[in-house]
Amino acid sequence: MKHFAWSLALVLLGFGASVHTAEAGDDSAPAASNVPGAPTPAIHPDRSITFTLEAPDARSVNVAGGDGLGKGPFPMTKGVEGHWSVTTPPAVPGFHYYWFVLDGVSVSDPSSKSYFGYGKETSGIEVPEPGADYYAINPVPHGEVRARWYLSKTTGEWRRALVYTPPGYDGNPKTRYPVLYLQHGSGEDETGWTRQGRAQFILDNLIAAGKAQPMIVVMDRGYAARVGMSEAKIAPGSSPADIKPGFMAFEDVIIHDLIPTIDASYRTVPDREHRAMAGLSMGGMQTLFIGLHHLDMFAYVASLSGPIVADPDSKQPLASTSPALFDTHTAYEGAFSDPGAFNSRVKLLWLGVGTAEPELFRAGIGGAVQALRAAGVRLVYFESHGTAHEWQTWRRDLNDLAPRLFR
Amino acid sequence: MKHFAWSLALVLLGFGASVHTAEAGDDSAPAASNVPGAPTPAIHPDRSITFTLEAPDARSVNVAGGDGLGKGPFPMTKGVEGHWSVTTPPAVPGFHYYWFVLDGVSVSDPSSKSYFGYGKETSGIEVPEPGADYYAINPVPHGEVRARWYLSKTTGEWRRALVYTPPGYDGNPKTRYPVLYLQHGSGEDETGWTRQGRAQFILDNLIAAGKAQPMIVVMDRGYAARVGMSEAKIAPGSSPADIKPGFMAFEDVIIHDLIPTIDASYRTVPDREHRAMAGLSMGGMQTLFIGLHHLDMFAYVASLSGPIVADPDSKQPLASTSPALFDTHTAYEGAFSDPGAFNSRVKLLWLGVGTAEPELFRAGIGGAVQALRAAGVRLVYFESHGTAHEWQTWRRDLNDLAPRLFR
Repeated sequence: MKHFAWSLALVLLGFGASVHTAEAGDDSAPAASNVPGAPTPAIHPDRSITFTLEAPDARSVNVAGGDGLGKGPFPMTKGVEGHWSVTTPPAVPGFHYYWFVLDGVSVSDPSSKSYFGYGKETSGIEVPEPGADYYAINPVPHGEVRARWYLSKTTGEWRRALVYTPPGYDGNPKTRYPVLYLQHGSGEDETGWTRQGRAQFILDNLIAAGKAQPMIVVMDRGYAARVGMSEAKIAPGSSPADIKPGFMAFEDVIIHDLIPTIDASYRTVPDREHRAMAGLSMGGMQTLFIGLHHLDMFAYVASLSGPIVADPDSKQPLASTSPALFDTHTAYEGAFSDPGAFNSRVKLLWLGVGTAEPELFRAGIGGAVQALRAAGVRLVYFESHGTAHEWQTWRRDLNDLAPRLFR
Repeated sequence: MKHFAWSLALVLLGFGASVHTAEAGDDSAPAASNVPGAPTPAIHPDRSITFTLEAPDARSVNVAGGDGLGKGPFPMTKGVEGHWSVTTPPAVPGFHYYWFVLDGVSVSDPSSKSYFGYGKETSGIEVPEPGADYYAINPVPHGEVRARWYLSKTTGEWRRALVYTPPGYDGNPKTRYPVLYLQHGSGEDETGWTRQGRAQFILDNLIAAGKAQPMIVVMDRGYAARVGMSEAKIAPGSSPADIKPGFMAFEDVIIHDLIPTIDASYRTVPDREHRAMAGLSMGGMQTLFIGLHHLDMFAYVASLSGPIVADPDSKQPLASTSPALFDTHTAYEGAFSDPGAFNSRVKLLWLGVGTAEPELFRAGIGGAVQALRAAGVRLVYFESHGTAHEWQTWRRDLNDLAPRLFR
């Protein structure tokens, strides 16, 4: 029926509908990230994946994607009637972005839902992790994810934040809740944490199990340009100094536009002891940049795979930053210069990285952890084993982090 | 800065970023439906549109799409460095689906946001209508759009409904609201009315102007298969009898799963006088099929470009149904057989169509309107001038319909 219903308008309008009828094999199952009814991509029991595309006139088709998919690109083979396919090696569990390279052009897979990544709509594949049900939609009470529009004085534009309200929010109209501000990574947007990250189900499950406090989670779009400000150019090798103006504009959005909107619109506890900030990758950088600069606003600060920036005014490429340059006395405007004061003021500093992430991330974050601990700064360090700079790392991070908040 | 931020992860990981730098001309502006920062598609003052794609190795690229885009497909021309482009004739205002045909394969435009249509993620272009600000995001109080998960006993699956709550919903905890159940068309899903249709902004604007009652709007996914039921095959030429089992399953979802969930979760007025159902195209068919069958549940029924089905058990192709077959005595299980009783029981029957829609829609809906009026059935008939079987028709429809509800 689903197949039928999709094509009804086409049928009514006299168009035929082209549908994949390929089967990837009896032992495989369509990915949960497929559009409903699409048989491929299909995942085999060993986590190898069969991808297909109908492209009778194409000369070459490849599959490429995120690290956990394996070392691609994977050339597809042309079969009968222009049916291209390939079965890739076993993938790492979790969510991976991917795309087809069709005669040299990167295109989305029409069989996949799309996910905002790399600054555009990108295909994604959900590879199940055996035994991991902490991000599944389980028969427990569920919160809502609300789209909230607000006018930013900083940027002069209407912005949209997504707001998770925990189960029971509407039914307990006198209860007030703490708030976690949770940011996506570079190239993603405010939809990342719920669509790719499944943050709402992670929270639902933790709250149902009594492992996390019921909390509001606010996910905003992590880009901002001040009124009249021109956008910086993209340049591989950009430096912290290149990033800074945009981070400062986003800081003003968070502090002066978003937090007042949230505190006015939801039943929050509007003080620092009930406010956390966390983010992944670029969002982790923003969390350290903004959160450590506003410890009057946040008592909990968490960076998930966020590059450590030793000097925010450096003109050296980010990727070249050496962990040896990280000085706990001066970093982040001296936030750590008095470890005792920091420890008594900050309820939680949380840093994490996946063990399969590039050296850039592991060395930088690991080096900062070592230096901070040596200086006497109290922190939680979490490693996600075997996962790369991808969403499975950040799901695990959130599952570790959320229970530590607002205790 | 936005450009920069998107590519940060790529930069950090050592990838270069490829970005459109093409300009469509000084008189054009990027479409609001583009991903942020993408300069094309760009819309000229006469509503002609420039599309571009980087495809150095492609042999042919065309643009194709919805009716309002014009009579395509439009062949693109290869310029320097594999830069393909075309400027299409002036388009009809409104939202149009479109796609590229790249060496014979239909693919999404990486510069466009994606919209769920045709059973997959599809590119879309928003062409402004001069003077129309009823669907703009204006400086008025805004409601929220909430994602609500619920377990359907009918299908055995977790389903997601999107729920618009009007401005002031949280601030007036003793106020109860009427509910409009609002369905998308074939090939679309529960996101259609807010992403393509901008229903939340239409309601915000109407409510702010005092033209519509504050109401809750529930948008569900209009497909359902009972537990263990196999999905019907897609077949151009399918008949009402082919459609019926799926519609009946969806009917049970609405009546037995969704309405009880909504009435238990939100401050509704849970009676028929405060409950409406409306839908577009396939959703209009569903509204007449379900709403007229449950006049004990709905006092307001609206079909937006919904094909009229004279006989739900017919095995003739839908597209072949003649308006002459529509018998007001027997249609829809005799719902109209006693026009006086119908008129006193039903607060509103609303039917609409766009004047540029195919004959299939215009003749069927127009014929039913004529027959119903001749029989003495009271109804509102609305024509959207110059618009096709597309979203601009349905935005106008909602803007006409919503003020008539719950009066």
